[in-house]
Amino acid sequence: MSSHRAKTGIQAFDNMISGGLIAGSANLIEGAPGTGKTTLAMQFIYNGIVKYNEPGLIITFEEFPQQFYHDALELGWDLRALEKEGMLRVIFSDPETTLHEIENPEGDFVSLIEEYDVKRVAIDSMTHFEYLTRDHYEVRDIERRFINALKREGVTSVLLKENDALLGQVPNSITSKTPFVVDTYILLRYVEVESAIRKALLILKMRGSQHDKDIRQYAITPTGIEVEETFEGHEGIMSGITHRKPQEAFMNVFGKK
Amino acid sequence: MSSHRAKTGIQAFDNMISGGLIAGSANLIEGAPGTGKTTLAMQFIYNGIVKYNEPGLIITFEEFPQQFYHDALELGWDLRALEKEGMLRVIFSDPETTLHEIENPEGDFVSLIEEYDVKRVAIDSMTHFEYLTRDHYEVRDIERRFINALKREGVTSVLLKENDALLGQVPNSITSKTPFVVDTYILLRYVEVESAIRKALLILKMRGSQHDKDIRQYAITPTGIEVEETFEGHEGIMSGITHRKPQEAFMNVFGKK
Amino acid sequence: MSSHRAKTGIQAFDNMISGGLIAGSANLIEGAPGTGKTTLAMQFIYNGIVKYNEPGLIITFEEFPQQFYHDALELGWDLRALEKEGMLRVIFSDPETTLHEIENPEGDFVSLIEEYDVKRVAIDSMTHFEYLTRDHYEVRDIERRFINALKREGVTSVLLKENDALLGQVPNSITSKTPFVVDTYILLRYVEVESAIRKALLILKMRGSQHDKDIRQYAITPTGIEVEETFEGHEGIMSGITHRKPQEAFMNVFGKK
Amino acid sequence: MSSHRAKTGIQAFDNMISGGLIAGSANLIEGAPGTGKTTLAMQFIYNGIVKYNEPGLIITFEEFPQQFYHDALELGWDLRALEKEGMLRVIFSDPETTLHEIENPEGDFVSLIEEYDVKRVAIDSMTHFEYLTRDHYEVRDIERRFINALKREGVTSVLLKENDALLGQVPNSITSKTPFVVDTYILLRYVEVESAIRKALLILKMRGSQHDKDIRQYAITPTGIEVEETFEGHEGIMSGITHRKPQEAFMNVFGKK
Amino acid sequence: MSSHRAKTGIQAFDNMISGGLIAGSANLIEGAPGTGKTTLAMQFIYNGIVKYNEPGLIITFEEFPQQFYHDALELGWDLRALEKEGMLRVIFSDPETTLHEIENPEGDFVSLIEEYDVKRVAIDSMTHFEYLTRDHYEVRDIERRFINALKREGVTSVLLKENDALLGQVPNSITSKTPFVVDTYILLRYVEVESAIRKALLILKMRGSQHDKDIRQYAITPTGIEVEETFEGHEGIMSGITHRKPQEAFMNVFGKK
Amino acid sequence: MSSHRAKTGIQAFDNMISGGLIAGSANLIEGAPGTGKTTLAMQFIYNGIVKYNEPGLIITFEEFPQQFYHDALELGWDLRALEKEGMLRVIFSDPETTLHEIENPEGDFVSLIEEYDVKRVAIDSMTHFEYLTRDHYEVRDIERRFINALKREGVTSVLLKENDALLGQVPNSITSKTPFVVDTYILLRYVEVESAIRKALLILKMRGSQHDKDIRQYAITPTGIEVEETFEGHEGIMSGITHRKPQEAFMNVFGKK
Repeated sequence: MSSHRAKTGIQAFDNMISGGLIAGSANLIEGAPGTGKTTLAMQFIYNGIVKYNEPGLIITFEEFPQQFYHDALELGWDLRALEKEGMLRVIFSDPETTLHEIENPEGDFVSLIEEYDVKRVAIDSMTHFEYLTRDHYEVRDIERRFINALKREGVTSVLLKENDALLGQVPNSITSKTPFVVDTYILLRYVEVESAIRKALLILKMRGSQHDKDIRQYAITPTGIEVEETFEGHEGIMSGITHRKPQEAFMNVFGKK
Repeated sequence: MSSHRAKTGIQAFDNMISGGLIAGSANLIEGAPGTGKTTLAMQFIYNGIVKYNEPGLIITFEEFPQQFYHDALELGWDLRALEKEGMLRVIFSDPETTLHEIENPEGDFVSLIEEYDVKRVAIDSMTHFEYLTRDHYEVRDIERRFINALKREGVTSVLLKENDALLGQVPNSITSKTPFVVDTYILLRYVEVESAIRKALLILKMRGSQHDKDIRQYAITPTGIEVEETFEGHEGIMSGITHRKPQEAFMNVFGKK
Repeated sequence: MSSHRAKTGIQAFDNMISGGLIAGSANLIEGAPGTGKTTLAMQFIYNGIVKYNEPGLIITFEEFPQQFYHDALELGWDLRALEKEGMLRVIFSDPETTLHEIENPEGDFVSLIEEYDVKRVAIDSMTHFEYLTRDHYEVRDIERRFINALKREGVTSVLLKENDALLGQVPNSITSKTPFVVDTYILLRYVEVESAIRKALLILKMRGSQHDKDIRQYAITPTGIEVEETFEGHEGIMSGITHRKPQEAFMNVFGKK
Repeated sequence: MSSHRAKTGIQAFDNMISGGLIAGSANLIEGAPGTGKTTLAMQFIYNGIVKYNEPGLIITFEEFPQQFYHDALELGWDLRALEKEGMLRVIFSDPETTLHEIENPEGDFVSLIEEYDVKRVAIDSMTHFEYLTRDHYEVRDIERRFINALKREGVTSVLLKENDALLGQVPNSITSKTPFVVDTYILLRYVEVESAIRKALLILKMRGSQHDKDIRQYAITPTGIEVEETFEGHEGIMSGITHRKPQEAFMNVFGKK
Repeated sequence: MSSHRAKTGIQAFDNMISGGLIAGSANLIEGAPGTGKTTLAMQFIYNGIVKYNEPGLIITFEEFPQQFYHDALELGWDLRALEKEGMLRVIFSDPETTLHEIENPEGDFVSLIEEYDVKRVAIDSMTHFEYLTRDHYEVRDIERRFINALKREGVTSVLLKENDALLGQVPNSITSKTPFVVDTYILLRYVEVESAIRKALLILKMRGSQHDKDIRQYAITPTGIEVEETFEGHEGIMSGITHRKPQEAFMNVFGKK
Repeated sequence: MSSHRAKTGIQAFDNMISGGLIAGSANLIEGAPGTGKTTLAMQFIYNGIVKYNEPGLIITFEEFPQQFYHDALELGWDLRALEKEGMLRVIFSDPETTLHEIENPEGDFVSLIEEYDVKRVAIDSMTHFEYLTRDHYEVRDIERRFINALKREGVTSVLLKENDALLGQVPNSITSKTPFVVDTYILLRYVEVESAIRKALLILKMRGSQHDKDIRQYAITPTGIEVEETFEGHEGIMSGITHRKPQEAFMNVFGKK
């Protein structure tokens, strides 16, 4: 497994994925509102530029670039400066145009990728492709074609996807076929622990690479995403509502043998 | 994170959100009937005026202003007096008109915001936008446009949203895309504890700011919302139906080590 | 909170709601079949007349008045006698007519309320408004208009609503928007305790008033509703299927410390 | 509560309902396939004739009378003999005809009730009325009219209703509005206890009468339904899948204090 | 209960049903894929011929007879030989033809039953009748007519039905009305026990006969179905995912008193 | 049970299925994204060629052959080399064409199977047949015809199927009728154990063969699928979210007796 890796620059996370995302792969990041999907994507693009010298492209279907500049700046990342240096493009577009201009070998996005020598792309978000048609198969086909076009250009992409589940068991089912089409499938989830809401990250799929199977805590700190330890001592994490393992409860009362 | 803050004037709550809502942001407050959404919004507007000298605007799509005056007065807040002082407007409108008059730079609501130098806006409730069309994407688009218009005017808004879930796990899923569009997402929930119904508040999302991750109790007191402690010693809070942690139960019987 | 109170005459219940329902308010009582909704409504009307001298009006959309007379008489309440005294009217109507005759300031129900000086109204049940149209918003609007008309007349109303949930977690969600529109929202539920079915009452919402947050047991006795203690020592009451708290179980075996 | 009672002749069951069903009332018995609904109805009719001298009528919408004769004979009840004595009629009909001939004061079923002086009626089953129309309100209206017609004739009726739930929490919701329309609502359910399937009976509603709140076991014996004890020592009965109360489990291991 | 019995030849199973299926009855066997429905049906037919001298008929709507011959031979049952002896017919047909040819007193299947003196019939599967129409009532009516035709011919039938539930509580509801129409209702289910999948058999309904209420384990052995013991010591069997009873767990640690 | 076996070459897995898949059978492998369905299929085909000298055919409806070559090479399997040797064909097609060319005895796929003497076929994936029509019965019929055609050609097939369930109880139901039509039904599932996501494999159905009933762990290693031990000491595996058996928890604290 000697594939070239596109490091995210988040050390603990890169460790989980054997060094980084596989160069040229399509990586889905799915989570509920507030789980930090966009932050993770911006961090991947920002670090790509400043740490690994890989020019980036952010395509957004809802937020204006101003919002990206502003939110990134709060985290200490000056995207506008990077744009001026010719290392980044943040573009507001719509799914239909985007598909067309990236699928067509002479499309605008293809030209842009080649002109800027873009190596990393973030899409915010794949969910907007679902609004193009009500035919499930067509959505799947559109997403497949879009992902294939990104791969043809050789870029490493981070594809964001909205997940409506806040907590609980019901939503533990995929709601679109996207996870079957991508190379990597990363889930961000809320978890209730001891009367607080923490965040959990797990990697369910990573084609052509070994990856950590742990469910890890992470935080959105003033300087970006930080991946932390597992939820040791708790059960039912993916149910969203944990409980202490009975063993832990016993030991706290009777002492450890 | 030096953003200007719009304090709610509820001390414990302002502490949870690093000092206050971010000035100019759109803040969603979602809860079941009786969880105090409207009280929280009125308190934000009232305190804004009397404590922080920020003129307010309340737009309501269902209740008549009289109901607001009456309910606020029960809590000791004389909205009518504030209206006479030119510091507040309480307006009964419909979603369609409201969208038009705030999106259009020369619309009535825009004029009103400018004339009164309105700094805080409360919308009761976003749910009514969902009745405008059955097309989910269109609802999302309408809400996005509405929120963008509020931001363009620079006001700090509190957007109420009805949540049909009383208790239990099934509704632990968002039912519209609004939480993805707003800056802040605050949930109010009922929780059964020891044969009583208490209320829980948690902040799931706050763009550009650190915030408390605790699930906190709160009460609607004769003088407004008061945020209290966590549910320490109980598990399963977000399921709506808690149980004592086994450890707590053991300790109560066998004593603490 | 000095609002005038319309006492129900059920002492323990009046205590839970700071003395009584707020005069002029609209109060929703929701429950499964057999939970005693109609009994509670009749008791409110009957006590209003004989204890507090407030004339009453019962509007029923399904049961004939004869059934009301008969059922009330079983509980010792002679409604027919009260009708003869001019203190009560029991009327069988349909939702459409009722809405029209109460919304129109010169409608039949308005005249009747004024002629009899009616102070208390019971509607059995709000559920029948849902059959008027399949448009959710229209139902909400009809109910809002109906409730506003009742308020305009200044009567204190008890609005019954059928809840299809017998037990269990799934139905812990409101099934219509009525609870958002009313002033008070009271839930009646079945609860399994120790191989028996008991009944639980809780108040989720009461605009402009403090109220008890306890989940209380109640019984339908030969003389009407009686509100009793909480379910102390049991958990999961709102799930419909309780279990003893582990602590209680431990103490019963090992003794109390 | 001195209403005349129509005893079922099942001693333990009559005790649960203060002596018997209320004469002239409409009594819903709901259960999954195999819970003994038909057996209970036949027993009510058979005992009515042989023990209390009340002529009976069984209307069936699916089974042929031959099946009834055969199944009853297995339980020692010779329905055919009772028909010959002029004390019973078993009639195969369809819901539409039945409604018409019982609602119309000069209809065939009305004549039959009067000619035979029928006091008890069994309907197998109410579920077939649901096939008449897809309009929920119309079903409710049809059932209400049907029940009112039965009441007008003064008969005590046992109305069977199919429940699709075998076990588990999801179906703990009523699936039609029938329970709101009838006087009595009796549920028959399967319950898993110690790797066996037992049967539970409970009375959720009984207008104008006190009734036992216990969840009772019952069996279909070679001589008919027998009502037995509660499920003492088990929890979660209405979930369909019980567990021993932890207290019981402890006591079996550590002994009783 | 002296009805003539059609023994299945599976000793432990015949014991559960008071000696055998009731001659002339319609018996539904429902289960998920792989639970051995077809094996059970073939065993009933095979044993009928070789042990009890009752000619058999298998009607299949999907599998070719070749598959039946092959699968049966794996279990040591030479169906082809029995066909040659004139004791068995295995016929591939479609639901529409089958209904017609068995309902019509001069239909092909009626002739065949009479010619071969068929006593036992297996239908694989009833599920295919559901594809004939989308009208639930029509499906019920078709199945009722089909079953009545089988009864008219006096055969003992085993009717297979596909159940989509693999494990878990949600599917604990019947998905068609067939169980209400048949005489016997037997469920085959998967159950997780100690990190393995076992199989459970239970009889929910058996008209005119006593039957075992136990939930029994069974296995598909190289010589056919074998019914085994209950799941003693485990709870929650019908949830599909058992757990040890706490009592058992305690005793294994602390010893039995 | 002396059927010829098509070994997968995964020793522990072949042991679970009495030596291998039955030659000529249709074997369904179902799992969520990332569970290794495709890896398992490639391993079956690759081992078939290099270990058992059985030529293989892979038909893919979404991935290009290049992706297969690449992913296989990561696992050390040089598919392209095998193609050159004439032992393998990897073909990108669509469901419609595939059905036609394999059902028609003179179709392209039939010719190819005969020309290459193909013994093993992998289909990635059956799910794509569901996009051909919205009629459930037609999907079933298409799949049955497709499977019959494969059987007619005598090949041993591995049919992949996408399962949308990530974790939890809700999806424990089959979502298509495919499992009823195939000979073997193998489930791959995610399971949360101790704050990590592991993978579980179980065999629910295997016509004409004994098979292991254990729920086994497995891993996708750098050299392919490896089947490991059971989840001993944990309960609730098929719920997706395990917990330690209380007995285990006790023993860890109090010691083993």
